[in-house]
Parts: sequence; C-alpha cells; structure tokens
Amino acid sequence: MTRESLLQILAAVERGEISSASAAERMASLPFEDLGYARVDHHRSLRHGLPEVIYAAGKTAAQTAGIFSKLAASGVDVLATRVDAETAAVILTAHPQAHYHSVARTMTLRQSAAKPAQGCIAVLCAGTSDIPVAEEAAVTAVTFGAQVVRIYDAGVAGVHRLLASRAELESADAVIVCAGMEGALPSVVGGLVGVPVIAVPTSVGYGASFGGTTALLGMLNSCSPNVTVVNIDNGFGAAYTATLIARGKK
Amino acid sequence: MTRESLLQILAAVERGEISSASAAERMASLPFEDLGYARVDHHRSLRHGLPEVIYAAGKTAAQTAGIFSKLAASGVDVLATRVDAETAAVILTAHPQAHYHSVARTMTLRQSAAKPAQGCIAVLCAGTSDIPVAEEAAVTAVTFGAQVVRIYDAGVAGVHRLLASRAELESADAVIVCAGMEGALPSVVGGLVGVPVIAVPTSVGYGASFGGTTALLGMLNSCSPNVTVVNIDNGFGAAYTATLIARGKK
Amino acid sequence: MTRESLLQILAAVERGEISSASAAERMASLPFEDLGYARVDHHRSLRHGLPEVIYAAGKTAAQTAGIFSKLAASGVDVLATRVDAETAAVILTAHPQAHYHSVARTMTLRQSAAKPAQGCIAVLCAGTSDIPVAEEAAVTAVTFGAQVVRIYDAGVAGVHRLLASRAELESADAVIVCAGMEGALPSVVGGLVGVPVIAVPTSVGYGASFGGTTALLGMLNSCSPNVTVVNIDNGFGAAYTATLIARGKK
Amino acid sequence: MTRESLLQILAAVERGEISSASAAERMASLPFEDLGYARVDHHRSLRHGLPEVIYAAGKTAAQTAGIFSKLAASGVDVLATRVDAETAAVILTAHPQAHYHSVARTMTLRQSAAKPAQGCIAVLCAGTSDIPVAEEAAVTAVTFGAQVVRIYDAGVAGVHRLLASRAELESADAVIVCAGMEGALPSVVGGLVGVPVIAVPTSVGYGASFGGTTALLGMLNSCSPNVTVVNIDNGFGAAYTATLIARGKK
Amino acid sequence: MTRESLLQILAAVERGEISSASAAERMASLPFEDLGYARVDHHRSLRHGLPEVIYAAGKTAAQTAGIFSKLAASGVDVLATRVDAETAAVILTAHPQAHYHSVARTMTLRQSAAKPAQGCIAVLCAGTSDIPVAEEAAVTAVTFGAQVVRIYDAGVAGVHRLLASRAELESADAVIVCAGMEGALPSVVGGLVGVPVIAVPTSVGYGASFGGTTALLGMLNSCSPNVTVVNIDNGFGAAYTATLIARGKK
Amino acid sequence: MTRESLLQILAAVERGEISSASAAERMASLPFEDLGYARVDHHRSLRHGLPEVIYAAGKTAAQTAGIFSKLAASGVDVLATRVDAETAAVILTAHPQAHYHSVARTMTLRQSAAKPAQGCIAVLCAGTSDIPVAEEAAVTAVTFGAQVVRIYDAGVAGVHRLLASRAELESADAVIVCAGMEGALPSVVGGLVGVPVIAVPTSVGYGASFGGTTALLGMLNSCSPNVTVVNIDNGFGAAYTATLIARGKK
Amino acid sequence: MTRESLLQILAAVERGEISSASAAERMASLPFEDLGYARVDHHRSLRHGLPEVIYAAGKTAAQTAGIFSKLAASGVDVLATRVDAETAAVILTAHPQAHYHSVARTMTLRQSAAKPAQGCIAVLCAGTSDIPVAEEAAVTAVTFGAQVVRIYDAGVAGVHRLLASRAELESADAVIVCAGMEGALPSVVGGLVGVPVIAVPTSVGYGASFGGTTALLGMLNSCSPNVTVVNIDNGFGAAYTATLIARGKK
Amino acid sequence: MTRESLLQILAAVERGEISSASAAERMASLPFEDLGYARVDHHRSLRHGLPEVIYAAGKTAAQTAGIFSKLAASGVDVLATRVDAETAAVILTAHPQAHYHSVARTMTLRQSAAKPAQGCIAVLCAGTSDIPVAEEAAVTAVTFGAQVVRIYDAGVAGVHRLLASRAELESADAVIVCAGMEGALPSVVGGLVGVPVIAVPTSVGYGASFGGTTALLGMLNSCSPNVTVVNIDNGFGAAYTATLIARGKK
Repeated sequence: MTRESLLQILAAVERGEISSASAAERMASLPFEDLGYARVDHHRSLRHGLPEVIYAAGKTAAQTAGIFSKLAASGVDVLATRVDAETAAVILTAHPQAHYHSVARTMTLRQSAAKPAQGCIAVLCAGTSDIPVAEEAAVTAVTFGAQVVRIYDAGVAGVHRLLASRAELESADAVIVCAGMEGALPSVVGGLVGVPVIAVPTSVGYGASFGGTTALLGMLNSCSPNVTVVNIDNGFGAAYTATLIARGKK
Repeated sequence: MTRESLLQILAAVERGEISSASAAERMASLPFEDLGYARVDHHRSLRHGLPEVIYAAGKTAAQTAGIFSKLAASGVDVLATRVDAETAAVILTAHPQAHYHSVARTMTLRQSAAKPAQGCIAVLCAGTSDIPVAEEAAVTAVTFGAQVVRIYDAGVAGVHRLLASRAELESADAVIVCAGMEGALPSVVGGLVGVPVIAVPTSVGYGASFGGTTALLGMLNSCSPNVTVVNIDNGFGAAYTATLIARGKK
Repeated sequence: MTRESLLQILAAVERGEISSASAAERMASLPFEDLGYARVDHHRSLRHGLPEVIYAAGKTAAQTAGIFSKLAASGVDVLATRVDAETAAVILTAHPQAHYHSVARTMTLRQSAAKPAQGCIAVLCAGTSDIPVAEEAAVTAVTFGAQVVRIYDAGVAGVHRLLASRAELESADAVIVCAGMEGALPSVVGGLVGVPVIAVPTSVGYGASFGGTTALLGMLNSCSPNVTVVNIDNGFGAAYTATLIARGKK
Repeated sequence: MTRESLLQILAAVERGEISSASAAERMASLPFEDLGYARVDHHRSLRHGLPEVIYAAGKTAAQTAGIFSKLAASGVDVLATRVDAETAAVILTAHPQAHYHSVARTMTLRQSAAKPAQGCIAVLCAGTSDIPVAEEAAVTAVTFGAQVVRIYDAGVAGVHRLLASRAELESADAVIVCAGMEGALPSVVGGLVGVPVIAVPTSVGYGASFGGTTALLGMLNSCSPNVTVVNIDNGFGAAYTATLIARGKK
Repeated sequence: MTRESLLQILAAVERGEISSASAAERMASLPFEDLGYARVDHHRSLRHGLPEVIYAAGKTAAQTAGIFSKLAASGVDVLATRVDAETAAVILTAHPQAHYHSVARTMTLRQSAAKPAQGCIAVLCAGTSDIPVAEEAAVTAVTFGAQVVRIYDAGVAGVHRLLASRAELESADAVIVCAGMEGALPSVVGGLVGVPVIAVPTSVGYGASFGGTTALLGMLNSCSPNVTVVNIDNGFGAAYTATLIARGKK
Repeated sequence: MTRESLLQILAAVERGEISSASAAERMASLPFEDLGYARVDHHRSLRHGLPEVIYAAGKTAAQTAGIFSKLAASGVDVLATRVDAETAAVILTAHPQAHYHSVARTMTLRQSAAKPAQGCIAVLCAGTSDIPVAEEAAVTAVTFGAQVVRIYDAGVAGVHRLLASRAELESADAVIVCAGMEGALPSVVGGLVGVPVIAVPTSVGYGASFGGTTALLGMLNSCSPNVTVVNIDNGFGAAYTATLIARGKK
Repeated sequence: MTRESLLQILAAVERGEISSASAAERMASLPFEDLGYARVDHHRSLRHGLPEVIYAAGKTAAQTAGIFSKLAASGVDVLATRVDAETAAVILTAHPQAHYHSVARTMTLRQSAAKPAQGCIAVLCAGTSDIPVAEEAAVTAVTFGAQVVRIYDAGVAGVHRLLASRAELESADAVIVCAGMEGALPSVVGGLVGVPVIAVPTSVGYGASFGGTTALLGMLNSCSPNVTVVNIDNGFGAAYTATLIARGKK
Repeated sequence: MTRESLLQILAAVERGEISSASAAERMASLPFEDLGYARVDHHRSLRHGLPEVIYAAGKTAAQTAGIFSKLAASGVDVLATRVDAETAAVILTAHPQAHYHSVARTMTLRQSAAKPAQGCIAVLCAGTSDIPVAEEAAVTAVTFGAQVVRIYDAGVAGVHRLLASRAELESADAVIVCAGMEGALPSVVGGLVGVPVIAVPTSVGYGASFGGTTALLGMLNSCSPNVTVVNIDNGFGAAYTATLIARGKK
C-alpha cells in the first residue's frame, strides 16, 4: 500500500493537481521505510536462497509447531534448531515428511527441488561431548545447500588424529571447529588450512570452563589469523556464515 | 636437508644397498615433520599468496626493523602491524620505499608486481575513535590484494547515515565492522547485507566498556547470524579472514 | 501520636509549665523521625498517586495473596509483579475482579475511578522472547496512568521494521526499550527520538549473554546520550520512571 | 542535492516526460536515506535546541580545538567535555570568550541569547572526590538550559547531611546522584524524592571498587524504583537525560 | 599418650638412663603437635564457652542427625545451621526438647544452665527477603549468649524507618546488618553508631545482583570505617564475631 | 543556629505570641536534620574520642596540607593516611612536630595528653611486601589509643613461624591479618585465637592475584568463623574496627 | 595400510621402476600421519601402562556401560570416573567383578595381575565435604598403581591436626591436596614437604566461593613454590600426574 | 638458643633438681615451634639442596642487592628472579662473579662445586614473546641442578614445528610449557609425552587475553590429564616443581 501512496502522489503530479515541489514535501513525510522493508526482505530472500529458520529454545512445543506449520504451508524449506524430543514429536505428527536430527536437535523439512551442493564445509569437533553442537552446524550447512565433511573426536591431545584428516581438511572451502574445555582445536586447524575457520566454543567442560567461556576466550585469542568466533554452542550461526563463504562469491 | 636425508635413503634402495623394508623402517624414524613443515609452508604461501607479516607490539624498534629488513631482502611483500612512529622512522631510514600508514600504525612494503584486486571488502566503523582499528583492517586488506570501501563514523545512534551507504555495503564480498562502546553496529549491518560480517570490537570507550569487553560480548550475541567475531582491536585478523572470503573459492 | 508528643510539649510551654529552653531539650530527644516518616510517606502518596506494589518473587502464593488482600481492603489500586500462575489463581479466588496478565506475570486490581491517561510511553522490544519483560513494563505503565504504545519484535537486525514505527516513537513522552542478546536496540532508538529512553536488558540469550549481563553492559555504553538503564528484566522499574517522566512536571 | 534528485524526477513527471509508475520505480532506487538523514537531524536540533557537543577524550588538543572552532563559526552554542588543561589553553587562545570549567573539565561557549531556565535539576555527590563528575553534570545541565542546585559531600555515612537538604531536593524536577565506592546514595535519595533519579557511578575508590564497577552494580540493584543508571563517570549523559526530563513535555 | 611419650623420656633422664642431650634429640622428633592439638582445643572450648556447631548444608538428614545426637550425648549445647525441614523432623524425633527455628533454618538444643546475656547485638535487615539470613544471625547470637534486638525491613529507600530505630541501635555493643540488592544499609548504619558493624550480604535480588556479589562488593567499599564484611548469607559467621565483641574483653 | 531557630519559636510560644498548634506546624517544616547533624557528630566525637582523619589519596599535597593545618589549629589529634613523601614534606614544613611514618605512608600529629593504651591489637602480615598495609593498620591503631604487637613475615608456607608467636597472638583483644597472594593467613590465625580477626587483603601478588581480589575472596571464604574482612589494602579500616573492639565495651 | 603404501613405493624403487627423486615426490604427499598415529599410541600405552579411563559425566548409563564393556572385553584394567549410582548398577549387572566406589563415584575393574605399588601418594582434604574429590583422586591413584595415604579433614583453621600428620606427609613422593572455600591448605602443606604438591580446588562452599573459583585462584597464588594446580574438582587429573611423579623416572 | 632452653630443663632433670612431671609441664609451655622452625628449615635445605631464592619484584635495587650480598656471604648458591637491569648492575658491582640473564631477568651466583645434572627438563614456549618467562624457568631449572632442553617458538598454529621436536620432548623427565594468548600448547604437548607437563600461562596477548587469564583458564581445562598449572608468568614456580620431579625420588 505504501507503493499505492507513492503512486497517488505521483499521479496527482501527472494530472497537474500538485506541483513537484509540493509532491516532494509530501513524500518526505511518507513512511518510506515500509517500502524499504519489503524491498530489502525481497532482495534478501532472493539473494540468499536460504530456508526459513525457527529458533525453538524458549518456545513451547505448540508455539514451535505452529510456526513450523505456517512456514511449511508457504512451500519453503524449513529448519528449526534447538528442538527437543517432545517438540519434535508434535511437529512430526503434523509433518511426517519432516526429519528430526535427534543429536543435532534440529528439525528439517525440504520442499524445494534438490540442488547440487554449493561448496564444501568441514565440521570438526574436539570430543564426543561436542558432537551435538557440531551436528547442529552440520545439519544446518547441509540444509543450506553445502556439502559437509565430518571430522569428529579430533582433540588436540591426540594431534596425530587431526593430522590424519589433513586431506579432508584441505578440500574444504570453510571449516567449522567446535570445541569445549580449553578450546584449542581451532588454532591448530587454522594453522593447517588456508580457508576461513569458524570457531564454535561449546559449553562442554566443568569447573573453570565456566560454561564455555574459557573455550570462547581461547578461540578469540587464537594465534591463527584465519579464525573467527561465534557464541557458545552456536553451531547454527557458524554454519550460516560458513555456507555464505563456501558457496563462493555472488 | 631433510629432503637430502630422504633422497639418500631412496638412492641406497635404488643402488640395491638396502631393501625397501629396511628403507621403510629408516623412514619411519626420520624427522618427517621437517619435511611436512617445509611442504606445508610452501603450499601455504603458494596458495595464499599473502605477504609476510610482522606483529611489532612488544618488540623494540631495532628488532622490528631487523625482521623487516630480513624479509624485505627475500623480495616478498612485507606488512608490519602495531608499528609506532619511532619504529616506523627506523624502518623508513633503511627502506625509504616502504610506506607508513600512521593512523593504521602499519608499515607496508610492496615488491611484487601490481595485481588486480581480488574481491571487495567494506570496512565500517562506528565512531571516529574506532578509525585506527578500521584502518589497520583496511590497509591489511589492500596489502593482501582486496579492494576496500571505507564507511566510517556510521554509528547506530544515527542509523540513517548507515542506511545511506547501503549501496556500497551491498557491493562488498565481505564486510568488516569495527565498533567500541556497545558494539551494536555489526548486528545492524548484518541485517542489511547478505555476505559474512566480521565484527571487530575496539577498546574505545570508558567505564563499563572494560577495554572493549562489552563490545566483544555484544558482538558475540549478535542477532544477525552472518556475524563472526575476532579479538578486541584485531583489525589485522578481520582483514585476513575477509580477504580469504573476498577473493572467492580456490 | 508523635504529633501528639510534640503538641504536649508545646502545650506545656504555652501553659508556662516548662521553659522554651527545656522544651528544646526535650524535643531534641524526640523520635522526630517518626514524624518525618508519616510526613514523607503522606507527601509521597499524595504526590505520586501511584498504586501499591507487591513484588511477588520469593514469596509464597499465600504470602502474596495475603498482602494483596490487605492492600485491596484499604481501597487503593494494587499492582503485583512477578506473579506466577499458581499465585494468580489464589488471588483471583479472593478477588475475582482483579486481572491477571499472564505474559506480563502481573496482577492488577483497579478500585479508583478511571482517569485520563497522563502522557504516552512507547514500549519496544527486540525479539519475541523479550515480550514478557516488555509486558511487565507496559502493564505497569498503564496501571500507573500512562497511555502505552507497544512496538514489539523490532530488533536491530531488521532496522527497517523499527524505522517503520518512527511516527509512533515520536509521539511518546518517554520510551522503554527491552532487549536481550547484544542489547543494541536502545542506542538505535535513542538516535531516533528526542525524549528519554529507558533501557531494560533482558535475560534472553545463551552462552556469552551471561543471563543478560552482555545486554546490560551494552546499554550502559550506549552512544546515545538520552539512554539510561535499569537492572536486568526490571520492566517494572523502567515503567515507574517512565511514568514519572511522561506525566510531566508537577 | 538528494532533494534535487527528487525534484528532477518530479519535474519530469510534471512535464509529462515520464509516467508516475516509472517515477515510482526510479524513486525506489534513490538513496532516500540521505533525505531522511537531513530531515532527522534538522528535526532533532529544532526540537532539542541543545548545543553541539564535543567529547574530547582521545582527541589531540589540536583536533578538539579544530572541531570547536568549526562549530563556533556556525554560531551555535558549543560544549566540550573531558577537556584537559592543555586543550583548554589552545581553545581559549582562539576563543577568549569561551569558558573553561577546570573541575568539570568542560569548555563552554555561549553564543545564543540568554533564555530562562527550563526546569530545575539537583546534582548531588557523595564525597569530595566525586565532584569532578558532578560538575560535568552540572555544567552540562546549565549549558543545556536547566537551573542547577548542587548538594555535594552528602554521603550515606552521614545521612543527616542529606536529610538537611531535603527541601532543595524536593524542588527539583530531576535529580542526578554521583557516587563512587559502594554507590549507595541514589537509593537513599530515591526514597526521599518523587521525581526520576539518575545515578552516575564514579570511578572513585580503590581495591574492590574495581574502577567504579561496584558503584555501578549497586545502583542497578537500587531498591528505589525511580532510579536509572548511566555509565561510570558519565556526568554528561546523566545531565542530557535530566535536562530532557526537567524541561517537561513538548 | 603423647604426654606419656614425653614423660617416658623425662623419666629415663630422671633415672639417669639417658643424657639430657640425647633426650633433647629424641624430643625433637616427637610428634609434639598432638600435644598442641589437645591443648589448643581445650583452651579454645574453655575460653570461648561456645556450643558445638554443625553446618548441615551438603549433609544428608541422617548424617546431620547423627552428629547432632553424638554432640547432644556429650551434654553440651548444640547449634545446627542450614537445617531444612526434613532434617529438622529427623532431629526432633530423637531430640524432642530441641528447637527448630524454621525461618532461620537453625536447630538449637540447650542443655547448659541459663546464663545472663553477655552484651547486646542489634540485627538489622533491609527487606523482608533478607529475614532468613538475619534470623540465622539472631538465633546464633542468642544461642551464643548475647541479647538480640531485631530491626527488620529498614531499607535505605525509607531511611526514616531506620532513623526511628536509632535509640535501639545505640544501645548495641555490636551491630549485624543483612542486606541484598545494592547492600547500602551497612554504610548508613555505620554512620549512626559508634560500635563495630558486621555486614552480611544476602543473595536476595536478581539480574545484576549476581547472587549477592553486588551487595558484597558494596559493603567492602563502605564509606563507614567501622564496617567489616563476611561471606554472602553468612549470618552465622557474623553472629560469631559479634558475640565475641559484645561479650567484651576477656 | 538551628537551635536558635528552635528557641525563637519556643520563645514565641512562651510569650503567647503563637499557639502550640501553630508552633508544631512551623517546626514540622524546620530543617530539623541540622539539629540532628550537630547532635550526632557531637555524640560521635565524644563517644569515640578518635582523632580526625584525612584520606590523602587523590588530593594534592596542597589540599591535604591545608586540611591538616585546619584540623591542627583546632587542637585535636590528626591522622592522615595514604600520604606520599612529597605531601609529607609540605606538611612537615608547617607542622614540624608532626610525624611521618614513611612505610605506613601516614602522618600523625598528637596534641592531646598521653593516655594509657586501651586494649591490645596484634597486627600480622604474611610477607614483607604486605608490611606497608600492616603499618597503616598499626600506626592507625596506636594513634587511636591501642597497644600494638607486630608479627610480620609469618606466611602460611612456614606455619611454624606463626606458631612460634602464639603467645603474643593470645594476648591480643583483636587481631589484624594482612595478606596478599592466596590470603590464607587469616584462616590459620583464626583457628589459633579466640578473639575477632579482621582480615585485610593486600594488592601484593601478580597474575591471578588480580590486584588483591584473590586474597579478598579467600578471606571471605575463610573456614574460621571469627574472621571478618575489609577492602583491599584498607589497613586504616581494619584498625578502626579493631580499636573499637580492643577498647572494650562502653 | 599406510605402511603398505610406503612399501609399494619403495618396492617400485627397488625394482627400478621409479627413480628415488620421483619416490621422494610421492612420499611427500602420503598421509604419513596415519603411520605416526599408530606409532604414537602404541608408544604411549606401552610407556604409561595405565588402564583405560572413561569420563562418564554427560554420558547416559547405557553409553558408559557400553564403553566399559568394550574395554573390559579387551582384557585391560578399566577406570570410570563421575559414575552415578544408576550407571554403576548397570555396569555391575554386566561386570559383577567390577567395584563401585560410591563416595569417589568411580568404577574400577582390575584384570591385570597385581603389581607392587610404585611410589606413595598422600591425599589430603580440608573438610568432610571435600572427601568425594579426594576419593576420586585416591581411587584413581591406587588403580594406577600407587600406594595412597589419606589425611582427611585437616583444614587450616585447625593447623595442629595437619602438623600431627607430618610424618605421613613426609613419606609421600607426591601430595594431592583437595580444598574448597579459601583453598589455603596446599600452601600450608607445600611449606611442610619437599615433594610436588598438586592442588585440587573443590566446588565446596557458598556465596563468594563461586563454585570453587575462589579456591582455584588461591591455589594459583600459593606462596609455596612446589604447588601446581588442576581444574576444580579434578581429582582424576591430580592423581594422574601424581602417579607419574610417584612412580619415579623411567 | 631454644635448644639451650630445652637443654637447661633436661639438665635440671638430670641433676635431680626437678621431676620429670614438672619438666613436662615446663616444656609444654616452651616455644617449641622455634625448635621446629630451625629443624624444618634445616631438613628442608638438606633435603632439597636448592639455592636460596630472592623474589626481587617490588624491592628496591638496594634492598635486593643487600639480601643478595647477605646470602652470598653465607657461601650458598643464590638465585634472584624478576631482577631489572638497574638492580642487576648494583649486584654485579658487588658480585662481579654473579651472572645476569637479561632475558630471563634472573641473577645467579654459583658458589658450590659443579654437580652432574639431575634429570632433564624440556622448556617450551609458543611464541617469541613468551621467551622471557620460558627463560626464567630454564635458568631456574639449571640453577637447581637440572639439564634443560629449550624448544621455543613452537606454537600450535604451526604444529609441525612441535612434532619435529618430538625426540627431544620424549627425552625429558618433566616438561614446562609457557604460552600466552589461547594457551593451547600444553594440551598438545601433554598428548605427545608420558611425563608431567607444567603449564605456565604468560601475560602475552592483548584484548580478551586479559593479561594471561585466558591462557590460564585454557590450561586448567586441558584435555590432557598430565597437565598441571601455575600462576601467570610464574616460570620460577614451574621450574621448582619440575626440578623436584626430574631429579627423581628421594
């Protein structure tokens, strides 16, 4: 309708009913942002081609399922993160074709045609306890259209296991590294590859791990200059950026 | 010389002096990492094509200048960061063709032939006090081969100034956002662009800014999923990763 | 009765029974604070005209309901905050005319005659998870006599949505902004309006949000000079001050 | 010039050269934010009527003096905060009619006609070491057009001194309270007045005062609901908001 | 028995069986600390005359009750702190003459003859939520032989209520002040009395109270020099020291 | 003069010029706190009999010396703490009879007649670096009228040295323990004596001592219930309270 | 199989099919790390001779039991830490010969022949609440082949109890000290013995113990130079290192 | 002389002047700790055979030199740490045979006969900025009698350099690892060796390294169980414990 308002003013000018100066005056007071709003969002969805995402933490099963159904009805691909088993069950009842990744705690619904993978992302984690975060990243990246290589349980105390995976590492366009405790793995990986490394601190650990804060701080102080960091346990965010990198330039 | 060791063993096999089994035995005990070291570094410099970098903080003017000269003598491009005026003067005496970027506090020496820019990076900062960090990022990115668009003094309290630069923002392959105080700018920028945003908290502020910690935490909690974060004042690191992104996939 | 004590001394002087010097002596030892107590409280309730408030957190349902009934019996308006569903049920049994705002977790009982709203307060929040805190603020402000305009889900990652509400923002006498995660919204809003902005950090977020501490620090470092801050999740306090501002000067 | 662009399009419509639909198309791609930028700022300065402000911390004497002169040349009132003696001397050389408040470390230049004070602000501080912050607030408030009542050295360990100033306190439209160490004064003051209290933690103290953090935290936890808080030592920000409150509603 | 060892050596010297030099040698290697152990403990219980104390937190009901019974059997007075209702029930079954203070969460058993109170302790708290901690202090102090005056709900936002209790305050030999949130009360009280004030931060509050840390820091920064501080919620410790003070010098 | 105001009203009643009701009215509006102010302070100085104290940190040499002279002129004893050598020299020029304790960084001027010591205070410190804080406490205590026993360099890593001083410890009415690093000494001392122990964390240490914070936290968690704590390096405050304890009950 | 790859290349050289230069080329691209991987692990298990360890925290009972069974089947000794009662029951059903140490929350299965103890480790704890951590250390050390001496409830507030155990302390080759609250015990012990002391902070305490952080910081600041520290509650880690020390050099 | 007191009592028993019971009585009141003091220290120096150590930080050049001379006069070996150049010059004037290690900032004076090295310690550091701390450790270890192998600049971002030194690593009886920034190196090293690793966080870094706190936390959370940690920059302490380990069991 904002466009309508604009067209009305322009039509009035066209009809000679108002002067261009007066039209300019009126336009300055138009809620032009609504126009911008639509445009930006449109541009964005066109450009990114990413599915809609629901962050389910702090929502009831009913709320999450409701949003999921609404998005599903519009025909797009849907991704929900931080989905617990109870919520998953509710969604699956309504959308049996959706898929629940229990370790990743994510729910995906693919409705678009299959597309070739755009770029390759390596997802690493240090210990088995970091796997849920790594899986959130991996499932997100796959859903967003990337190919994913998983290299799990490659902690720095057994650095040879990591070195053994160097070939896989080197084939990736972007690397996601999930680690708790001392969070040292991204630095080591950063030294082995020539692509951006996105470090995800996990809340794995106890005592002076302070819920992932130690890993977070360690990653921010990485001596490898190709390491950037996201919030604790934010596998989704890491995959979002890694996907943008891996698909290459526009 | 490690290669020499390897060749000696292989030559002995070739001459029939030792069996292949015995050669395998000897090789297993070789310091193969040295081989790996050279190879990796070689691979790395070939693949990245990045200049050598000196981090001058905590080094004396003489030490920094000494390393600078040594690298310069090898014919490569050289970048030194955190270079104060005194150190710069020492370097310039020996290398008058080097260039000191006083605001960025970086020293560059280009010895390679000019190449076309690989990708475009937008560098933003929130306030004028953030400019030194932004310039460290900008000079680094240019030195690493990217085209750089600077959008400075675009703080969130005057969001219209930022919106006015949207066209420039949208042309970038990666965006670097430097901000101190509350560190809110990356989230706003992240919502406007479809490429990775690398957030650099700066130590600008006072009181409860805690030397940039507040900005750092804010950026890690960004509601824009395409934001990743580096250490406080780490313009260099942000530019390093942004360059890898902007030049596109291998 | 303290006034009585005072009058008795004065009467004794009047009757010539004690000298003024002796009276001064006695008065110096009177518990004059009691006088002050009554006077201050009286002044305060007269001047503020605010309802009585119960902070229910940490009280049992029975305790809260008991205080609620006692205040209700005195005929004043009553507001209880941080009221859970169980406590609400107990109160509603005794006071069916009370109203429970389940999202805001507040209980209100209006017993005074309706009055025209005194000033307008805009209440914003960044995400849907911030709504409970925003509602605590909104319900409090309405109960305290202000008109409230709600602008919800206007996070900085979609700044156009915020800009679209600028007209409503500009009509407010005071603005309350609730935000978790990076807490960037108050700075952006502060740049758009010419009235005081009261920022309420919320405990929404995870990992390095540290229960709202990151949002709190961000708001304290706001680059907008018209922003002041209250404690995490303190929608009530924000509304209390906003009401004082919005009703205008005495 | 953006207005020019707009007028050119409108004139083309007026001349019948382009249709309104086509004009709408072109306009959608105009950098409309520039228009908004100018408008907002204009609105803002008109509405607020506040002088231009320079934050001198982190700027050289020459830089601050340069900006000061530029603003002074435009005829507006100018306020500079965090001005050290050296910078003050440089400014005074160029602007002998400016006034340096050495304790407040602020520089003011009044060029507009005197106006009657708009509202009254009480500025309190707990100890003599808090006076510089209190003075920054007081000078700012006066420069912004408010009447200021100073109540200094009224710490909570001698609460009678504070009570003795109750009459002055009660005449204020807004109260600014500056305190370091335990930061308890705003709570006590908040209980005595019926207007908003803006608490300014100061970096006064040692050991576990952590540069004002303890005072800041104490103020955020105030048991008086009419207390809001600004950053450590931010006398300017407190005065900015207090002025908005004290001048009353638009 | 250690004394026995010593006497044996001395007897051997007495009998001329060993020389004093040789005896000195042997003694140097004796576990003399055991001697010290007994002596110290004996001295201590004689000198302090305090009941035995059990800290029940982290112990099972059975464990606490078992220790309680063992101490009770020895005829001394017994005090148990941090006793929940379940544990209290178990103890009361075995010791019906014990007394459970449910608010203070302490259990007392008096078996010694009544003695006149030794000194007077005023126990204050800021809000009703602080009462459990204040009661732990009050019950402990009474059990340790002091007279206790309770002044509750005397927060600094209503400083007149505190002033109204000045007479009671001034009669105390030591004052315990329990407060959460901003923890400002001890400073105000410290300014009103001439005796030691022991400040007890409580974990009352939310958000930036950080579980009592803010109150703790505030109290440590008190501007009243007669304030010392104990751990968060440590009503027992405050009463222990206050009792030592109130009973006067040996 | 406030008393004068009061007497004038009373005299008017006495003369029958105004009724007692009217007098009560007037009195209610009198700044009665001024009366309280004088009374309290008078009571306080009479009761405490403590010298006037100047906290010199953050004051210029001239300011400190000025206050010192003003107090000295009134004939009282004067104590100044945190006095650097330069300030001391300025004071000594004007007051050659004053005494500068260079290690304690305190300046004392005794003008009252000598009095017998009131109680005994043991002052301990853990290492030689803690001595300045311990001396601030010791000099303060002596100036306030207590006898002081110094037990220095008695760290817990050599617990036998501490045990060797047990006799001196046991003669004290109150004990002050200054320690940096891990701050363990107060707990050990608390277990050896039956009187209050006031723990003073010092800023001695490096790295994870965080300027005395570690020692402070350790002392607050002391397992000895007779330990209370003051701010980091606050030897003065510890001595103030210890003096109140050591002089015994009123 | 990597060895196979290597042998194939070498055989080709032996057969004269490829030159040694070409062989070197090929080898440089071999995944030699796999070779290293096997070698390292083999070396490690041979050299350490330690049982396999399972960290059960964060694993389900089924997962832990599954891993336990798998390791048990290989004939080695097995140690599982952080095993709750439910998990223990599951394991014991399958492995009745395993032993559950309920206080230490560890499960051990010995399948190797008994060996003489290698060295002696003293395990101390400060209070009874620290015993679970101490037991985790003690059971681990015994399982790893050391003799263990337990000295429990030897807190610093009763230093004589510690001194009484000096003989036992002095017989140890390494000492583990577990303490919560102020964490002072390792410093005292460090002063009494001439062997390495490994300090284990425990999460015992409340309020300002911050879950063991205060004890941790205290231990890191120990004035005894023979103290090193592990993470909060990490009895296992302390025992691991202590065992390496106590068994003496290779 | 304490021994004298003891001998006097024993002599009196020997002479029959006092009974053994009476002697026991007297002895119980003897300052036996003095005896213990001497004995302990004697035992300690005999057992450890370590030189005397002076911690020069916070001491004046004169003080340090004075203590150095006093110790030197007694003929023992002397080690002083944290010695700046100025202090070194003063000491060298008096003790030209002493040796100043300028990078390590330590001063050593060897006066005892050369002894064969007892055990081997590997000292690693991550970056060149960590070398001063590593050298403090290395010089201390050598002075204490160990052989030292230095492996410097072996950061985790270039893990191959570390692997290349594996042979040297494996020959060590104890390993000291100094690292700042993310502090990841000890975990990697811990995985490569079978001996205790002592991690020394260094204050190298900026921003979120928080003066070494991040490295410290990372090391405490090491996933390698043979890692223990000392305070930030505490090279001396690490070498002290490493020496005890490397020399093997008593």
